Amino acid sequence: MDKDSKPYRVFQLMYDNDPFSKHLGMELKSIKKGTCELQLKVTPNMLNGFSIAHGGISYSLCDSALAFAANSHGTQCVSIETSISHVRPSPQNGIMTAVASELHRGKTTGIYEVKVTNEQQKTIALFKGTVYNTGKYWLPDEHQ
Amino acid sequence: MDKDSKPYRVFQLMYDNDPFSKHLGMELKSIKKGTCELQLKVTPNMLNGFSIAHGGISYSLCDSALAFAANSHGTQCVSIETSISHVRPSPQNGIMTAVASELHRGKTTGIYEVKVTNEQQKTIALFKGTVYNTGKYWLPDEHQ
Amino acid sequence: MDKDSKPYRVFQLMYDNDPFSKHLGMELKSIKKGTCELQLKVTPNMLNGFSIAHGGISYSLCDSALAFAANSHGTQCVSIETSISHVRPSPQNGIMTAVASELHRGKTTGIYEVKVTNEQQKTIALFKGTVYNTGKYWLPDEHQ
Amino acid sequence: MDKDSKPYRVFQLMYDNDPFSKHLGMELKSIKKGTCELQLKVTPNMLNGFSIAHGGISYSLCDSALAFAANSHGTQCVSIETSISHVRPSPQNGIMTAVASELHRGKTTGIYEVKVTNEQQKTIALFKGTVYNTGKYWLPDEHQ
Repeated sequence: MDKDSKPYRVFQLMYDNDPFSKHLGMELKSIKKGTCELQLKVTPNMLNGFSIAHGGISYSLCDSALAFAANSHGTQCVSIETSISHVRPSPQNGIMTAVASELHRGKTTGIYEVKVTNEQQKTIALFKGTVYNTGKYWLPDEHQ
Repeated sequence: MDKDSKPYRVFQLMYDNDPFSKHLGMELKSIKKGTCELQLKVTPNMLNGFSIAHGGISYSLCDSALAFAANSHGTQCVSIETSISHVRPSPQNGIMTAVASELHRGKTTGIYEVKVTNEQQKTIALFKGTVYNTGKYWLPDEHQ
Repeated sequence: MDKDSKPYRVFQLMYDNDPFSKHLGMELKSIKKGTCELQLKVTPNMLNGFSIAHGGISYSLCDSALAFAANSHGTQCVSIETSISHVRPSPQNGIMTAVASELHRGKTTGIYEVKVTNEQQKTIALFKGTVYNTGKYWLPDEHQ
Repeated sequence: MDKDSKPYRVFQLMYDNDPFSKHLGMELKSIKKGTCELQLKVTPNMLNGFSIAHGGISYSLCDSALAFAANSHGTQCVSIETSISHVRPSPQNGIMTAVASELHRGKTTGIYEVKVTNEQQKTIALFKGTVYNTGKYWLPDEHQ
């Protein structure tokens, strides 16, 4: 990863101050303009009453991947509407990998999909998110 | 709450084995057929890069409220598709209250909305969830 | 209905130039700030391969009800994201009544739900829509 | 297109009895297991109050594409939940092309995305649909 790139610098600013993403152990695998790959491991704390990962775990991973992908262009974007389908369960110790892709980027809104897969590349969850672009810059050297 | 009621007994079975709902400090306020009220307090661990509750927190609360409401009829229901709009931020120490209501209950699917409000009864998030009813009973005295 | 009210005047401006809503025979039953009731009758042309109303019919009715409700405040709002669950079929000659309600209205976005029922007040479809408020006025006497 | 293939035969059965898809002038471009391409031309009747295609037009096209793609495996599938984002307007005489793809196919549910583009291959709408598989066969030679 190019740590001097704008997407990485914005990610770093956001992630450094994001206790929940850290608390769940999310790790960045890749970040470029409009896309982001994140990973986490399912710990015992993350299970629900069916002994599989709680739906909130894959959602949180997708929501963070959405945020990093949408903000990677350098302006602050906030989530408006998100949806997720939980397609396959993830057991304890399972690795979830989320890849966010940009489907559309207009003047004021952007649409992203995030696909979560397991170690066998099987789909665990499918997420779609719409963001609103506030136009405020993240990086001080863009404020001009 | 009537602790001998079927909705409460199913809730107890599910919640006793749901580490993530406990980990986030979710507390049951009320459970009846098709409806459920849950609450949590936003701790420092739950914040995101904007110093407000991560979207995964309100989603997790809604997803648990959906699960308890949908399963309260006594048969096991699994989530098919969920969507959430984050309408207002929740700060550290904020109290989130989620109320799940049944919009439709058919033979194989059910639709629920969950509204999350803060201490001032202002809306924080609006959630909609669709579940599939597997028809398997939760309680042994119904297996007949 | 108060035909001098702002919601009605905006509705009239929109509906007069809306061939598709007219083509489907949509009739206004009520319009107030943030809410709107529309009705249509299912004609033979509107059926699908199961001999029930095509999903596009209830969606179109909801989308129009959303538009009239969201624009009733006097500024132009465009749909960002909409979802619909088709809960019960509607046969030929069935009457669909859609009621749009405002769940949230913020500075730049608004969230609406639309419920479609049949003559027996049974739910046919549940719709949720998010709009973006462009801030442009509909009525000339507000341009100042 | 292979007119003896199961997907085409199921399509034919469905489309022959689908007045609304015909009424909107939908034309099949391609049908295979789990995927379908449909097209229509925006006529004056299809416009809304902004003089662009009504949201119900692209929705109807997507909903039909979803139905043909989901039923192409030979068993009857009904829509549970659908969502659409209208990304770019389509003017009168514009050609809309919808391509449905299968994201997931499980035992009881399937998830499809449909992308609608214009003549310049620009995205007009993004649709996601979840279906429930009833397991009933469409073709008589499969009833055994």
